[in-house]
Amino acid sequence: MTGTCKLKLYFITSNKHKYMEVLRIAEKYGICLEMMPGMKFEIQSDSLEEISIYSAIENYKVLRKPLMVEDAGLFIKALNGFPGPYSSYVYKTIGINGILKLMEGVEDRRAYFMSVVTIIAEPIFIVEKGLVNGLISNEPRGSFGFGFDPIFIPEGSTKTFAEMTVEEKNKYSHRAKAVEKAFKRLLQLKDVVKT
Amino acid sequence: MTGTCKLKLYFITSNKHKYMEVLRIAEKYGICLEMMPGMKFEIQSDSLEEISIYSAIENYKVLRKPLMVEDAGLFIKALNGFPGPYSSYVYKTIGINGILKLMEGVEDRRAYFMSVVTIIAEPIFIVEKGLVNGLISNEPRGSFGFGFDPIFIPEGSTKTFAEMTVEEKNKYSHRAKAVEKAFKRLLQLKDVVKT
Repeated sequence: MTGTCKLKLYFITSNKHKYMEVLRIAEKYGICLEMMPGMKFEIQSDSLEEISIYSAIENYKVLRKPLMVEDAGLFIKALNGFPGPYSSYVYKTIGINGILKLMEGVEDRRAYFMSVVTIIAEPIFIVEKGLVNGLISNEPRGSFGFGFDPIFIPEGSTKTFAEMTVEEKNKYSHRAKAVEKAFKRLLQLKDVVKT
Repeated sequence: MTGTCKLKLYFITSNKHKYMEVLRIAEKYGICLEMMPGMKFEIQSDSLEEISIYSAIENYKVLRKPLMVEDAGLFIKALNGFPGPYSSYVYKTIGINGILKLMEGVEDRRAYFMSVVTIIAEPIFIVEKGLVNGLISNEPRGSFGFGFDPIFIPEGSTKTFAEMTVEEKNKYSHRAKAVEKAFKRLLQLKDVVKT
């Protein structure tokens, strides 16, 4: 398998769902992706980009091998962007029911998921974003995916992310968009750098 | 004034309310406290202690002068500790009304405020905690203080923190407890180190 790799990349995450989503895209580009729990170097910031870059750099200091990190958040308009960069902490504490309670009686259900991917593979350093607009559903639906997937309906679909297979979710998702952009850029730059 | 200082300490914060609360205690101990906005080096962690130590170290790398940082959070039992270390972000987004909405119909109103103080003043390195138990009120009351003060009633009082003067709040508060402990330890160690 390694023989056919255009590039080997460590994906710093301990989330298997995330890994599976990204793995599908990596395979398409001939990138061999290896999951690595890595170190939790997430700073508190309202900017996902800042969090992602910082985490990539801190992990790179230790690992010194081509790596990527991905950070994502759900931003709900009526809640001033909450839970945003702190989505995973909010998921662990007040959870989906907490979000639905905060959204009780709220007509404006608009929200977006944003993903930021940072890749460091000397001499290449890439930061790419992906965004998907959608709505917060009135009740949780579906059992695929993770986090707030059961209450997010992406624009252009009637299903929540949790009602979609990985392939289907990747057609819409913020993460797939950011990863596609980052992988394209990576292979392109890799060619340029070589010559 | 500096002539009577036992010690000069930079307090890394841009929160004037926090500064005022700590200043009262510092004066009592003959510590000259100077407010300094510093750098925002807060990591994402469920542990306030980790956040506080990390932030102190990162700021110390740059400042190299005796400094303290203080991190605090409101932990609500029925919400699994939410908003915890992310209290200031939660305050800025869903705010007091968001917390009260999450607590609608919830009988168990128990919560605590926790504060962690880290002081670095070579060769001294101190980490101290302070905690105050209390209840989440049914509606906001008072206009003193900051953050979630208007909805927190400390044990032993019927007032919220926002209905108290600085002196009164310092009799109960997590912050005052942590700071008192840290300052006592600092002066004690300073004497020991000198001899």
